[in-house]
Amino acid sequence: MSEFDLIRRHLTGVGTARDDVLVDVGDDCALLRVPAGRELAVGIDTLVAGVHFLPDCDPEALGWKALAVNLSDLAAVGAEPAWATLALTMPEPDEAWLAAFVRGFGALAAAEDVRLVGGDLTRGPLTVTVQAHGFVPADHVLRRAGARPGDLICVSGALGDAGLALRHLTQGEPLDEYLRGRLDRPSPRVALGEVLRGLATSAIDLSDGLISDLGHVLAASGCGARVELERLPLADQVAAAVAVDEDWSLPLASGDDYELCFTLPPAALGQLPVLAAAAGCPLTTIGEIVAGQGLRLVRADGSGWNATGGGYDHFVAS
Amino acid sequence: MSEFDLIRRHLTGVGTARDDVLVDVGDDCALLRVPAGRELAVGIDTLVAGVHFLPDCDPEALGWKALAVNLSDLAAVGAEPAWATLALTMPEPDEAWLAAFVRGFGALAAAEDVRLVGGDLTRGPLTVTVQAHGFVPADHVLRRAGARPGDLICVSGALGDAGLALRHLTQGEPLDEYLRGRLDRPSPRVALGEVLRGLATSAIDLSDGLISDLGHVLAASGCGARVELERLPLADQVAAAVAVDEDWSLPLASGDDYELCFTLPPAALGQLPVLAAAAGCPLTTIGEIVAGQGLRLVRADGSGWNATGGGYDHFVAS
Repeated sequence: MSEFDLIRRHLTGVGTARDDVLVDVGDDCALLRVPAGRELAVGIDTLVAGVHFLPDCDPEALGWKALAVNLSDLAAVGAEPAWATLALTMPEPDEAWLAAFVRGFGALAAAEDVRLVGGDLTRGPLTVTVQAHGFVPADHVLRRAGARPGDLICVSGALGDAGLALRHLTQGEPLDEYLRGRLDRPSPRVALGEVLRGLATSAIDLSDGLISDLGHVLAASGCGARVELERLPLADQVAAAVAVDEDWSLPLASGDDYELCFTLPPAALGQLPVLAAAAGCPLTTIGEIVAGQGLRLVRADGSGWNATGGGYDHFVAS
Repeated sequence: MSEFDLIRRHLTGVGTARDDVLVDVGDDCALLRVPAGRELAVGIDTLVAGVHFLPDCDPEALGWKALAVNLSDLAAVGAEPAWATLALTMPEPDEAWLAAFVRGFGALAAAEDVRLVGGDLTRGPLTVTVQAHGFVPADHVLRRAGARPGDLICVSGALGDAGLALRHLTQGEPLDEYLRGRLDRPSPRVALGEVLRGLATSAIDLSDGLISDLGHVLAASGCGARVELERLPLADQVAAAVAVDEDWSLPLASGDDYELCFTLPPAALGQLPVLAAAAGCPLTTIGEIVAGQGLRLVRADGSGWNATGGGYDHFVAS
C-alpha cells in the first residue's frame, strides 16, 4: 500500500468535522478559514522514539499524547483548538500500528473538536511531528511575559505523576491505572486556558518541569519567584516518593505534566474556586512572584534553596 | 548549549519581518493574523536523512530545500506565502550545522517574504519537518480536481533535472552548476500559482514525477490525459540522457522537480506567454485532458504507452 493509499485510508475524516475546514487531507494544502476577530495560535512539537517515548510504546497512547502535547501549548496561550496537522515518519508502513495511532489521536481530537487537516507519511526512524492551530480573541492571548511582583503563582492538577510513572517503567515496576493514564493520556488544560484569558498575567504549560518552565516565565517577565514546597499539589504516590528521602525532583524537575502554571493578581485569589469549576480541574496557589530574579524553593520552616534552569543550582540554607 | 538557547540564537528573526506576526518563535505558540477576505492554506512535509536527502549533504542547501518543498505546495494551490514553522531533529546539537541550515532556509524565506514563526529542536535521527502557511483570496484556491476534457496540460520550467542530478551523484559523477542548483535549490513557482488563480482548472506541484502527480489530478478530476513526449520541456543534459536509450523515466517519473503542472481551458492558450512573463518562468503545453481515465504517453509518430501510478504499467504499441 502506497503512502497515498495509507493517507487516504487512515488520515482522512479524523476528529470533528468543522465548517471552517474548506479542504483537508489529500490536496497539496489544507484550506482553512479563521473567524473574524480571532488571531491564529500555532505550535509545533516533535516526539522522537527513544528520546520522548519508548519505541515499543502503545501506538494508541502515542497518538493521543502527540496531539495532547500540542493542545497543551494552545492551552498555555488561551487558544481554542481547531485544527491539527501530522507528519509521521515510520520505519515500515505498518498499517495496524498506524490505525491504532490514529485511533488515539482521533479520540482526543474528537473530544476537543479538533480536525486533522493535513498529513504527511514518510519512511524513516519513528518520529511524530504535530502542529496544532487554535483561535484567540484579538489581544487576549496569554503570554509568558507579564507576571508582576506580588502575583500569585498557581498550577492546575498535580505535579510529578508522569515522572513517577516513567521511573516505575524504567525500573521494571508495575504502574497503577492512575499513573499510567497520567503518563500516556495527559489531559491538555484547554478549558482552563480559555477561562484565564484577560485574567492571568502570565501562563505556560509544564512540559519540562516546574523549575524549567516557571523559569521561562520569570525570564520573560523579568522577576523572581518564591514557591512553597508543601503547597505543591501531589498525588499520594508522588507525595510518598518525595517523602522517602525528601527528593523533590519529581514535582519540580520531571517532565510531561502538561498542567498549566499561571500567575494571578492577588485580588483574583477569591476567583480561584470559580475558575477551577469552570476549568474542570483543581487549581492550587503554590507561591508568589517577587522582585529581583531567580526561583526560591522554601519549606514550611523557612529553609530552602535556589533553583536555576532545569535543575538545582546549589543548596542554600537560609 | 540547551535547546532553548539554540532556538533563541538561531531560530529567531529568520526571514522577513511581517506585521501579521504578533508573537513568533520563543513563546508556547506563535500568534498570527490572517487578513480579512483571505483563506489560510497550510501544508506540512518531512524530509528524512537517507530517504529524501543524503545525510552528508550541504546543510545550507537542505535548509533552502526544506522550505522550497513546502512553498511549492502553497504555489500549487495559488497561495501567497506568509509564515513557516520548523521542527528539526538532529543527532547532536551541532551549532555550525544549524547555522548553515538556517542560512539556507532564511535566504529563501527572505526572498519570498516568509517569516519563521515557530521552531522546535529535538535530538534524534536527522529529520526536517516544515509547515508553510499562505493566503488565498476566498474561493480562489487552485485544486487538483477541476480538469475537464479538452483542457490543455501545461508545465513550468523543465522536467527531470533533479532526477538526472541525483543519478550523477549516486554514480559518483560530477555535477554541473545548473543541475546542482536544480537539485539543491529548487525555485518554488509561487508567482505562477498566484497568476493561475481563477484561470487554471486544476494544478499540482511536481514532487514525485509527472506520471504520479498528474495521476493525482486525473483521479481527483475523474478524467484521463494524453501527453506528447516530444513536447516535454527538457534541459539539454536531460534530453541527451533520454536520447541514449529512449528512457523517459527522468522527465516522467523522477522526483524533486518542484515545477507546477496545471490545466487551462483551450481558450486560454493565447494567454500562456503573458502568464509566463508574469510568473518569470517558461510554460509549455504538453498535452490535453481527455474523457475516460488513464494517462497515455505518445510519440510524434503516434506510438506510445499507457502509464499508471508512479511507473510504467505496461508497454502498449499503438
